[in-house]
Amino acid sequence: MNKETQWIVEAIEAAAKTADRDGEYWRASYTEQDAEITALLAQYMRDAGMEVYSDAVGNLFGRIEGKSRRIVMSGSHRDTVRHGGKYDGMLGILTALKAAAALKEELGEPEKTVEVAAFCEEESSRFPTSYLGSRNLTGDLTEAELDDLDADGVRLAEAMKQSGYLKSPISIPRQELERFVELHIEQGGVLEKEKKQIGIVTDIVGMFCGEIYVRGQQNHAGTTPMWMRKDPMPLAAEFIFRLNSWAMEHKTDMVCTVGRMVIEPGNANVIPAHIMFTFDIRSSDEALLSESREKIRQLQAELTADVSIEVKITCDEAPVHLDLQGRKWLREIAEEEEISYREMVSGAGHDSQMIGQKYSTNMLFVPSKDGISHSPKEYTSPEDIDAGYMMLKNYLRKTAWKR
Amino acid sequence: MNKETQWIVEAIEAAAKTADRDGEYWRASYTEQDAEITALLAQYMRDAGMEVYSDAVGNLFGRIEGKSRRIVMSGSHRDTVRHGGKYDGMLGILTALKAAAALKEELGEPEKTVEVAAFCEEESSRFPTSYLGSRNLTGDLTEAELDDLDADGVRLAEAMKQSGYLKSPISIPRQELERFVELHIEQGGVLEKEKKQIGIVTDIVGMFCGEIYVRGQQNHAGTTPMWMRKDPMPLAAEFIFRLNSWAMEHKTDMVCTVGRMVIEPGNANVIPAHIMFTFDIRSSDEALLSESREKIRQLQAELTADVSIEVKITCDEAPVHLDLQGRKWLREIAEEEEISYREMVSGAGHDSQMIGQKYSTNMLFVPSKDGISHSPKEYTSPEDIDAGYMMLKNYLRKTAWKR
Repeated sequence: MNKETQWIVEAIEAAAKTADRDGEYWRASYTEQDAEITALLAQYMRDAGMEVYSDAVGNLFGRIEGKSRRIVMSGSHRDTVRHGGKYDGMLGILTALKAAAALKEELGEPEKTVEVAAFCEEESSRFPTSYLGSRNLTGDLTEAELDDLDADGVRLAEAMKQSGYLKSPISIPRQELERFVELHIEQGGVLEKEKKQIGIVTDIVGMFCGEIYVRGQQNHAGTTPMWMRKDPMPLAAEFIFRLNSWAMEHKTDMVCTVGRMVIEPGNANVIPAHIMFTFDIRSSDEALLSESREKIRQLQAELTADVSIEVKITCDEAPVHLDLQGRKWLREIAEEEEISYREMVSGAGHDSQMIGQKYSTNMLFVPSKDGISHSPKEYTSPEDIDAGYMMLKNYLRKTAWKR
Repeated sequence: MNKETQWIVEAIEAAAKTADRDGEYWRASYTEQDAEITALLAQYMRDAGMEVYSDAVGNLFGRIEGKSRRIVMSGSHRDTVRHGGKYDGMLGILTALKAAAALKEELGEPEKTVEVAAFCEEESSRFPTSYLGSRNLTGDLTEAELDDLDADGVRLAEAMKQSGYLKSPISIPRQELERFVELHIEQGGVLEKEKKQIGIVTDIVGMFCGEIYVRGQQNHAGTTPMWMRKDPMPLAAEFIFRLNSWAMEHKTDMVCTVGRMVIEPGNANVIPAHIMFTFDIRSSDEALLSESREKIRQLQAELTADVSIEVKITCDEAPVHLDLQGRKWLREIAEEEEISYREMVSGAGHDSQMIGQKYSTNMLFVPSKDGISHSPKEYTSPEDIDAGYMMLKNYLRKTAWKR
């Protein structure tokens, strides 16, 4: 393991120390923990001779001025979910930081300007919306979202101001951005299972998510004959069963999950008044996502009889296809460096999903032990970090230093 | 409306004043509210010249000694569910109390000894087990249950002692009990819909209830392909859907409800690790209950594939058939008094269900407005209370005064 990878492994541990929130691992946005990591990363950036600045919403950037003002950017998010882990997000920031620093030292001034990014609020770690930082970069963050409230009723705008941000207009697209690349843990078990060190991401799945409200009539479970009932439960069950059966027919291209259900009033001896359940459908194939929209509509129409079924869409994002030229370069680098890899789809959303809708974007995955993420058990071995580092460093060299 | 019914209507309001628990209607067992109602009912009993005593667990009795020590008992429960109403339980106690008092005044010493009962903890209003008071009467309460804990971790035995009970052995069957009769609100909408004032109960349904645990494997909703999943949700949905479809085929004789579900961890973007859902199956037909046990076993066997399904039975009670002679008397009384009635099955459990397993027992229903119970909206009109009072008074006259 080279000394740069050694530095990353140690920096992961140093960064982790800032995420202790009342005894649990949680770095929510615009908190003490967030201020601490921001200070630490800024110090690392300054140590590497980078110019350090934050944008209006608090994304942190380390900048190496190049001959051109066109930017090659790399990084990831610095927030974590509650009970999260040390690698998700942070590994991509620290790897980018070290790669850019090492290249600057070895090769001097780059052709393109290089920026290392540490985005805030990707995980919806505190406020309801995700990808807040990267959407500010692309110009897709709306003023209305600044009124969002956290669990304690604090306004997003207020939280930003208290952290010293929101002193300039938000959501101004970064015109000079030419290319973005993000290294991230896989958050799944495919690389480990197939004994590959690197995943070169081809697409980030599109998502069609929502909440389905089935409204019936609350009644006593003992005294209401079957024929008098308007019971939402069997309808909800049939909806979920049939939706899943349909998804199973497309099992190589799509995933479908019902992970949450709320039953009111939720007593064993009361026919529920209403039921809410979520659906989360993902595919890299836009045609399958369209079909899923149609399937939800069809089930809604067929199952509405004595109960009413309402569908509330909470997310409808097209798949993002990552940059073909960048993917070719990444394959070449892997082959030159003799690093085992496979091309793969990302089933999880990332900042790259936002940025990739407007700018040439690529993603690299490194293995997650046992496929675990969003858990203190997250782990990626130093050997795999080393492979990721070599991939990212060579990619930045090729794209920004043009060597 | 005669003056006795007027008294009952006023007493209902007086009793209701004792059930205010921090602003909500809730008379849980062995609480201040319970002590207040017990004192009030004891006073009413003494005012009517009854001998008043409590048994080991706190059931309250008002006794009118007769020529025989054999007992005709009438009453109901004095506890209420949280957010409950004024009529459930209390109407049966007050109607019995007034009917016995009026008969004593009109006819003097009865042939049989008459007792008016105000049972405690029928509703599982504070502790996990139901029908605690009536099961003490029949000898079916176990010592082990005294270790049950309430939501604050208080032991049942401790709560009883603090209320001044548990000074003598529990669960001694009442040998002298000859006959029990309970008047209760219907808790359903059949009488109202059919414009009948009285329901003469033929059977109390048997219940087969439990919790079904479906255990799969928690995973990320985006990164776990369909073929790699062990998702308990579609299996739970299929189980509920098929169980309900089967129950619908028997819709005149059986009801089946899934009213509660717990999903772990319950996030929209996480494949659940495990799911628990309840089932509540009731029928007056023992053969159908047997079939339901078989159906649950069959679904468990057929659906266990990648997930494990465990069935935990929480209640398995045979239907109770109420006393045929008593039903005949009640029909005769209704016809003599020109009160509209129908015979009907009780879909809810009652103290009569416990007592009826060992002693000759009958039940009378009066209408519940809009079928509502377990709610502050409970209401039974004075006219319907009057009809119930006339039924119960004549029944007690016939059985205890033998006139």
